[in-house]
Amino acid sequence: MKILIIGGSGTIGKKVSAHFARNHDVLVAGRVSGDVRVDIAEPQTIEAMFESVGGVDAAVCIAGDAKWDAFEQMSEADFYVGLKSKLMGQVNLVRIGHHYLNDGGSFTLTTGILADDPVMLTTSAAMVNGAIHSFVRAAALELKRGMRINAVSSGLVEDAVQRYGAYFPGHNPIPMEKVVNGYVRSVEGKGTGRVIRIYDNG
Amino acid sequence: MKILIIGGSGTIGKKVSAHFARNHDVLVAGRVSGDVRVDIAEPQTIEAMFESVGGVDAAVCIAGDAKWDAFEQMSEADFYVGLKSKLMGQVNLVRIGHHYLNDGGSFTLTTGILADDPVMLTTSAAMVNGAIHSFVRAAALELKRGMRINAVSSGLVEDAVQRYGAYFPGHNPIPMEKVVNGYVRSVEGKGTGRVIRIYDNG
Repeated sequence: MKILIIGGSGTIGKKVSAHFARNHDVLVAGRVSGDVRVDIAEPQTIEAMFESVGGVDAAVCIAGDAKWDAFEQMSEADFYVGLKSKLMGQVNLVRIGHHYLNDGGSFTLTTGILADDPVMLTTSAAMVNGAIHSFVRAAALELKRGMRINAVSSGLVEDAVQRYGAYFPGHNPIPMEKVVNGYVRSVEGKGTGRVIRIYDNG
Repeated sequence: MKILIIGGSGTIGKKVSAHFARNHDVLVAGRVSGDVRVDIAEPQTIEAMFESVGGVDAAVCIAGDAKWDAFEQMSEADFYVGLKSKLMGQVNLVRIGHHYLNDGGSFTLTTGILADDPVMLTTSAAMVNGAIHSFVRAAALELKRGMRINAVSSGLVEDAVQRYGAYFPGHNPIPMEKVVNGYVRSVEGKGTGRVIRIYDNG
């Protein structure tokens, strides 16, 4: 399969890219590195990316930002950071990308446990993740040519514990190989409209 | 209790307003009718509304639009209709309104079954509803002074069957009194961070 991984150089992305590269033709897209440049918050760069790489069998997005802050400090503009990047960035990837995906191709978006089990400071991040969960279910009803769409929603991943662990009291870290398996299930499985939850609630 | 009902003249809103008016001091806010004017898509009108009504014990929002259309027809701007109105309108209601709510006051937002069980044409409407579900969980962690927040997510309501039934094949209509009870549970109960689902899956 020809697999395009947006955000393929990040904490999760580099493990996912390395895994798929063993058996597939992987192209990594990123804001500052990779085989092709894209900033999902800028729709014209999404179009340019697909024009440059051509048809793909799977588009995996592990990119997108949202602002973390105390709710009472969040301005309306702060909420729009996440709406523009992690939410509409991923929606636009599908909205534009479905014209370029090969028949039977798949989209795999990335969310996270905050959608279901938020922590402090995440009113925006949680909201954006929950939005994608519902979007995936709805878009799966309408995609044509056998195209599929899923989201991988992971708990706090092992490789992010040092930087973010303090924000997730009592959350059990998710081993990177389990997270990678979530993406494998979406790309190599046949499911669609699914939120693939990789949580460890003990 | 002093209860402010935004969208209190709509299909669901008028039933909810009539119910609470039996035992509470109800103020109805709306774009074109009611005791006070507000368009939740315009944040300055939210601020003006709260300035005009003063402290309230409960703010109930049964307002907000999102565009329904085939996914392949939806432009980025079409998605922003729902993000600006039903999503950020309700977020802004809480973001601005928590300064005006009385101690122990509650917010009750409105979503719908599309978040969990979408139908065709609802990539935007489903997404906005799912976003609010996660927002409510996250905001509940941070609200102070005993304030609470919940969302009522109803299936296709009885009074909307004639207009919208054809879009919801096989959905069992929800009797209006059950929908009203969802709002009562949020306003008069003590729960917070909850999505109160009023579904009838048979």
